[in-house]
Amino acid sequence: MKVFIVFAHPEPQSLNGSLLKVAVEELESQGHEVKVSDLYAMKWKSQVDREDFPQHPADERLRVTKASAVATYSGTLTDDVRQEQEKLKWADFVIFQFPLWCTARRTGVIDMEKEFCLEKRAMVVVTLGGWKEHYSARGIGGPLEDLLFPVTHGTFYYTGMEVLPSFAMYRTDRATDEQFKEAADELRQRMKTLFTAKPIAFRRQNGGDYEIPALTLKRGLEGPNASGFSLHSRNVEDATES
Amino acid sequence: MKVFIVFAHPEPQSLNGSLLKVAVEELESQGHEVKVSDLYAMKWKSQVDREDFPQHPADERLRVTKASAVATYSGTLTDDVRQEQEKLKWADFVIFQFPLWCTARRTGVIDMEKEFCLEKRAMVVVTLGGWKEHYSARGIGGPLEDLLFPVTHGTFYYTGMEVLPSFAMYRTDRATDEQFKEAADELRQRMKTLFTAKPIAFRRQNGGDYEIPALTLKRGLEGPNASGFSLHSRNVEDATES
Repeated sequence: MKVFIVFAHPEPQSLNGSLLKVAVEELESQGHEVKVSDLYAMKWKSQVDREDFPQHPADERLRVTKASAVATYSGTLTDDVRQEQEKLKWADFVIFQFPLWCTARRTGVIDMEKEFCLEKRAMVVVTLGGWKEHYSARGIGGPLEDLLFPVTHGTFYYTGMEVLPSFAMYRTDRATDEQFKEAADELRQRMKTLFTAKPIAFRRQNGGDYEIPALTLKRGLEGPNASGFSLHSRNVEDATES
Repeated sequence: MKVFIVFAHPEPQSLNGSLLKVAVEELESQGHEVKVSDLYAMKWKSQVDREDFPQHPADERLRVTKASAVATYSGTLTDDVRQEQEKLKWADFVIFQFPLWCTARRTGVIDMEKEFCLEKRAMVVVTLGGWKEHYSARGIGGPLEDLLFPVTHGTFYYTGMEVLPSFAMYRTDRATDEQFKEAADELRQRMKTLFTAKPIAFRRQNGGDYEIPALTLKRGLEGPNASGFSLHSRNVEDATES
């Protein structure tokens, strides 16, 4: 069979590099064909921007989802993207390999000393093409605040900030002027209460709620239906209600 | 007060660009000072690599976490990172604004037509500095498979692939040769069952489990303690047990 490994790590001599070798050798010894895309070695351009759509008029607003569809169906995707798509089409099995910090990337926040962040507050402002229902408690995309947990809890709160609930605008691909106006009004309201609104009640790492050093939540602290990320906030509403 | 907005969108004329203006205007009208980092306009380099550590010897293995600590304490961080840190230190409030697709970025998979992916299988191989317990059902980092949900469910499964449980190696910063050998053995075993192992039992979008078009899970299909992302798999074990 054919296996395509997408590998993201800047150092070939790393533990990740060694694990990659283990996987490739094992797969080949079983007779599988293997292709590896080493994203760092390829200097893979990770952000989507105008360069990806050379046919798109320079003076015209770029709508990424639409431009991407147009480029796909008109056969004008850039060569680097097309080559990766070919590998993907070729493969029977796809593996993504990366260290977890690689997903956080170089945001300028991640490497900070924690003391920078104490006494600060933070929030996410996010837009989504999908419906609000898709990201509700029972929605197929998962609850929005859970999707954002690696940022709100893993980045903001972990570095010492208080985090407000996220602001989201949905169905942005088809937004009417009226819908934009509503969202803008709501955003304005949120901007008025940055320093007074109640933050998400994430539990303190060393506040007594966790076993040390395993950092697992002590038994009996959660609500009857809490699980997953919601365990780590106090007084979460029943997460199974939408 | 001082508000720092980190903005990630390639198109200033976008809906996101308009929302940014709304926020800035509102904040300034309240007398706040505002700084904006427009990551695309700045051509922000998002990946961490050797260029970030010019003092690091070219022939020496790069350990990102360590190199980052050394650069921070020796004052040799690159100017672009330092400038962002200054803004962060300056701020009382931090806002991250982005469209949700921006977190997925340009992986070469995201823009694919779904038909490429049918009949394929996929999995994640990930390494973590933290302990396994930190990413267990009750661990402070959140359950690992939940952290990876945007990749396993949002990318792989959404484009039509069957997804195997992720392979993870923990505490990699201090791994001994013995620990590496154990992980390598486990990875070898996983590589032997790529095409036979049981995939995660994610529910089919149009398989009858969801209300259409809201795509919310129908009542009563989940186990007694399921919530969050685990709602979207069949036969999930009680997620509150660690």
